[in-house]
Amino acid sequence: MTGQPITCKAAVAMGAKEPLQVVDVVVGPPQKGEVRIKITHTALCHTDEFTLSGDDPEGLFPCILGHEAAGIVESVGEGVTTCKPGDHVIPCYQAECFPSDREKNTCPTCRGYSLGKTNLCGKVRAFTGKGIMRADGKPRFTLKADGTPIYHFMGTSTFAEYTVLHEESVAVVRNDAPLDKVCLLGCGVSTGLGAVWNTAKVEEGASVAVFGLGTVGLAVIDGARAAKASRIIAVDLDESKFERARAFGATEFVNPAKHDRPIQQVLVEMTNGGVDYSFECIGNVKVMRAALECCAKGWGVSTIIGVAGAGQEIATRPFQLVTGRVWKGTAFGGFQSRSMVPKLVDRYLNGEFKVDEYITHTLAFDHINEAFDLLRKGQCLRCVMTL
Amino acid sequence: MTGQPITCKAAVAMGAKEPLQVVDVVVGPPQKGEVRIKITHTALCHTDEFTLSGDDPEGLFPCILGHEAAGIVESVGEGVTTCKPGDHVIPCYQAECFPSDREKNTCPTCRGYSLGKTNLCGKVRAFTGKGIMRADGKPRFTLKADGTPIYHFMGTSTFAEYTVLHEESVAVVRNDAPLDKVCLLGCGVSTGLGAVWNTAKVEEGASVAVFGLGTVGLAVIDGARAAKASRIIAVDLDESKFERARAFGATEFVNPAKHDRPIQQVLVEMTNGGVDYSFECIGNVKVMRAALECCAKGWGVSTIIGVAGAGQEIATRPFQLVTGRVWKGTAFGGFQSRSMVPKLVDRYLNGEFKVDEYITHTLAFDHINEAFDLLRKGQCLRCVMTL
Repeated sequence: MTGQPITCKAAVAMGAKEPLQVVDVVVGPPQKGEVRIKITHTALCHTDEFTLSGDDPEGLFPCILGHEAAGIVESVGEGVTTCKPGDHVIPCYQAECFPSDREKNTCPTCRGYSLGKTNLCGKVRAFTGKGIMRADGKPRFTLKADGTPIYHFMGTSTFAEYTVLHEESVAVVRNDAPLDKVCLLGCGVSTGLGAVWNTAKVEEGASVAVFGLGTVGLAVIDGARAAKASRIIAVDLDESKFERARAFGATEFVNPAKHDRPIQQVLVEMTNGGVDYSFECIGNVKVMRAALECCAKGWGVSTIIGVAGAGQEIATRPFQLVTGRVWKGTAFGGFQSRSMVPKLVDRYLNGEFKVDEYITHTLAFDHINEAFDLLRKGQCLRCVMTL
Repeated sequence: MTGQPITCKAAVAMGAKEPLQVVDVVVGPPQKGEVRIKITHTALCHTDEFTLSGDDPEGLFPCILGHEAAGIVESVGEGVTTCKPGDHVIPCYQAECFPSDREKNTCPTCRGYSLGKTNLCGKVRAFTGKGIMRADGKPRFTLKADGTPIYHFMGTSTFAEYTVLHEESVAVVRNDAPLDKVCLLGCGVSTGLGAVWNTAKVEEGASVAVFGLGTVGLAVIDGARAAKASRIIAVDLDESKFERARAFGATEFVNPAKHDRPIQQVLVEMTNGGVDYSFECIGNVKVMRAALECCAKGWGVSTIIGVAGAGQEIATRPFQLVTGRVWKGTAFGGFQSRSMVPKLVDRYLNGEFKVDEYITHTLAFDHINEAFDLLRKGQCLRCVMTL
């Protein structure tokens, strides 16, 4: 089918708050610098639900959501050199430009002073942010029924049997990696691990507090365990999550609802002055404040991972920072995506951290609206769908 | 006079908002672990004024203010080993415990995980915070007239001909350093330089924005110049300060009042995406937000140095941090005081940074209330008083 449109199934979000419609779509051939991928497995994540809910000010409809997946390259467009048909790949919503971009200053972000300082490459952001492709400023998806163009989402759109990505968004992984598992390395698991290893840089012996025990929070716990943290304190209002957190490496458990003092005070007392590192994995601005304020005066580092609602703000007294606490955040765990995701696959296969254990549900693709329901009800960590 | 009380002049703050009274006080002999110092020169700083204004919730009266000074050791108490009579010294409001404390875990802060991570040693904080000395829980000052005890301030109380410090608060400097100049290394100048070198760690080629062009802001500019920053953008509402900022190393100047857009937007545009480092040297929580938000997405670091009013809060959207900006703060520029102040004196004498240029006024000690007036009116950078 190289060079030809492909008609296939996709779950299309026709509008905010509407159930997805699994319908036939036409996926155009990859143009210059593009890669068409047969998606084999996709999970879903809160960011998909956030956009579907209508609260995402950048949300565009109709669109094909999905950004945590794995697949196989079907064909490549002109000039593509870093992957070829048959390669096993993980779509990366955070793209990464080429070494030649950095040499020639052709990436708007990854040049000059910024080199090596961030993973937030902006090479294709102007296009992915608008749901279109760089080559012609149009999407590659149309509805089979009436030819309506369908926007891309996060530069990935993995809720489709075939999708088209910019080459900068494609991480090639080894062919023996189980795609039904490593698809999770496209978002939440990598984000949690990287927050610990790249952003906060947790060292052996450190104390860690983790707020929120969903997939990202559990990945933070697993990453802190791998980094040999001495205390890993899991914080959640839902105590039913504590057993699983213990299996991931948490050593202590706190339910804020069982204390009549602010949770930051409880944690400061538990740790004789505050934790060395904290992580907010919920997206609640009040919890973000507590996570900062439970850190040790002098050196505590708090990392925000959760995504707050539009327009919400964090606040604290500046004295918290003047006395040595550091407030940071992370996106995709600070990993440079195409370079690092393949290495994460290697480390997963070496048994250095968990992946399989997040998969609480598997569903066929045409049951995708059930998967959203499970996510909304907090009943699943990750639901992997087979296409 | 070793072992005997000394009667001398001191400027006593009898109560909030009252002019200081230059009166006779009795300074007790140094007890175990204490050092009595003849103050030769003292400057004053906004923190003195903050406490005198009554806004400092920890303020205690009557007290002897002052924390930016230099002097000569008059006598030492039992067990003091790190200084001796005749040594030239700089009082350090941020104390530093001994290597033996760290070996034996006898400092509440500088042990275990924290080692080397912070300059905020807490060894004598429990006493200096209450205006008393560790040996007997009492102040060493009394009013000559009626024996009223007078509290210490910041562990230094340099507005007196003689003062008593814990040994942990005394930095010994070389005898050829001009005390009328190096007294400034006790607070503002060191704070600004250290914010650049220790807290933010500005590198060669970086772009820097500095909000507020008082002593600390100018020290930040001078520190950034020494670190070979490529652009140093000075921001202040008072353009009369720009000429001096240029002499310290600023390369560009922005008056927020001349723009109808938020200042962070102006700076982001000027720098094609934001500065690499920003510093807030005012103590205004709105400016702190602007300083964070003018930083480059992905790697910008904003450091709060200014001290905000009691109860005020900083705020921003968490997205600012999730997209890679870092919010930090600094106290005494991250310098471990007794270890590093002597090295700063060496570097000053090597001509590596300015000190003399901050001294816009000199006054005799009994004109101290005039010095406060100059400070309140923003008419001086530093006023050094000779005792």
